[in-house]
Amino acid sequence: MKRGLFITFEGPDGSGKTTVSTAVTKQLEKDGYKVRYTREPGGSKIAELIRNLILDPENTDMDARTEALLYAASRRQHLVDKVLPALEEGITIISDRFVDSSLAYQGCGRQIGIDEVYEINLFAIENHLPDKTIFLNIDAETGLERIAKGRTYLDRLDQESIEFHERVHEGYQKVIEKYADRMIVVDASREVEEVVQQTYQIVKGLLDEAGNA
Amino acid sequence: MKRGLFITFEGPDGSGKTTVSTAVTKQLEKDGYKVRYTREPGGSKIAELIRNLILDPENTDMDARTEALLYAASRRQHLVDKVLPALEEGITIISDRFVDSSLAYQGCGRQIGIDEVYEINLFAIENHLPDKTIFLNIDAETGLERIAKGRTYLDRLDQESIEFHERVHEGYQKVIEKYADRMIVVDASREVEEVVQQTYQIVKGLLDEAGNA
Repeated sequence: MKRGLFITFEGPDGSGKTTVSTAVTKQLEKDGYKVRYTREPGGSKIAELIRNLILDPENTDMDARTEALLYAASRRQHLVDKVLPALEEGITIISDRFVDSSLAYQGCGRQIGIDEVYEINLFAIENHLPDKTIFLNIDAETGLERIAKGRTYLDRLDQESIEFHERVHEGYQKVIEKYADRMIVVDASREVEEVVQQTYQIVKGLLDEAGNA
Repeated sequence: MKRGLFITFEGPDGSGKTTVSTAVTKQLEKDGYKVRYTREPGGSKIAELIRNLILDPENTDMDARTEALLYAASRRQHLVDKVLPALEEGITIISDRFVDSSLAYQGCGRQIGIDEVYEINLFAIENHLPDKTIFLNIDAETGLERIAKGRTYLDRLDQESIEFHERVHEGYQKVIEKYADRMIVVDASREVEEVVQQTYQIVKGLLDEAGNA
């Protein structure tokens, strides 16, 4: 059986990752493609326990490196429990965030450094890098305006400063350059429906090219 | 002010690490040395939450790499919260287990590989390796006999097979060779009181040599 493709969606907060990736998944499912949407912790019990620990607003004294290691741990468990078994079954995985999020958020946002965060993530994912990454690109200001409008609750990350989000944005730009071979950059500043349609065509193209019906 | 020394105690289960390291700390305190006993998670709230997650017997499906990343995360937080502040205050830390435990248990016991586990632990501890490590050496059989006698409850690690503990033992032997420059190997197969007295003299010697009264 043909192994499923592993496609990740990345982009700064406010880029519309979740809206776009779920809409694209639904449309592909309607067309009869074997695709599955997921995001960490994605129903893996252990990954979820780890994630709760990271996002608990009471854990304000969490060190940046502790946070990075916990994200890598949650990622590992979600990969093993949910992503790899699906790929084996020939199902294409559309993952809302993956390793690049840690490079941007912990590597640059928390200023640990992209290369160091990459190392612990390679330990976590071994050779299971995404086949392709759809990067929803948006300038920092537009992204932040969208977050401010859309949010109804605050978790620990959202309480971070504007400067943090600007560093994340810069981090993502470095990540795009660094891993250019697997990145497909989409302009996400347009109306969401346009972004969905363009992205849908791109992912559909990838599936057809790979022969994943 | 003189920075405290960072001394760790290592050895397979049944080597008497906890008994010996607490007894040595007490004796040094009586002598007027500024020493503090600790073990991960050591009263760091976040480190403790992580540790509970690792040791919860319900989490039987935890992947080996997830476990290694969680130990590294808990270690990081305990280091930042408890160890480094004490060293800064001139207090010598006697830590019951540290990075070498992960090399032996996750690197060899779980068969991830010592070098890979070392990498994520270096991310966690940065340049804060122990000044010296007291290694309580004991052959695998004697260690296992002592465990079998002494234990009154079972956590997830204790349920592991004899083979696991034998791999840990081999792992520790590799660790002793690999990091020989900071290792002080003590024969822990003797009566505990003898081991305590020898170890006390060694640690006292280190403190006097470093001028840490």
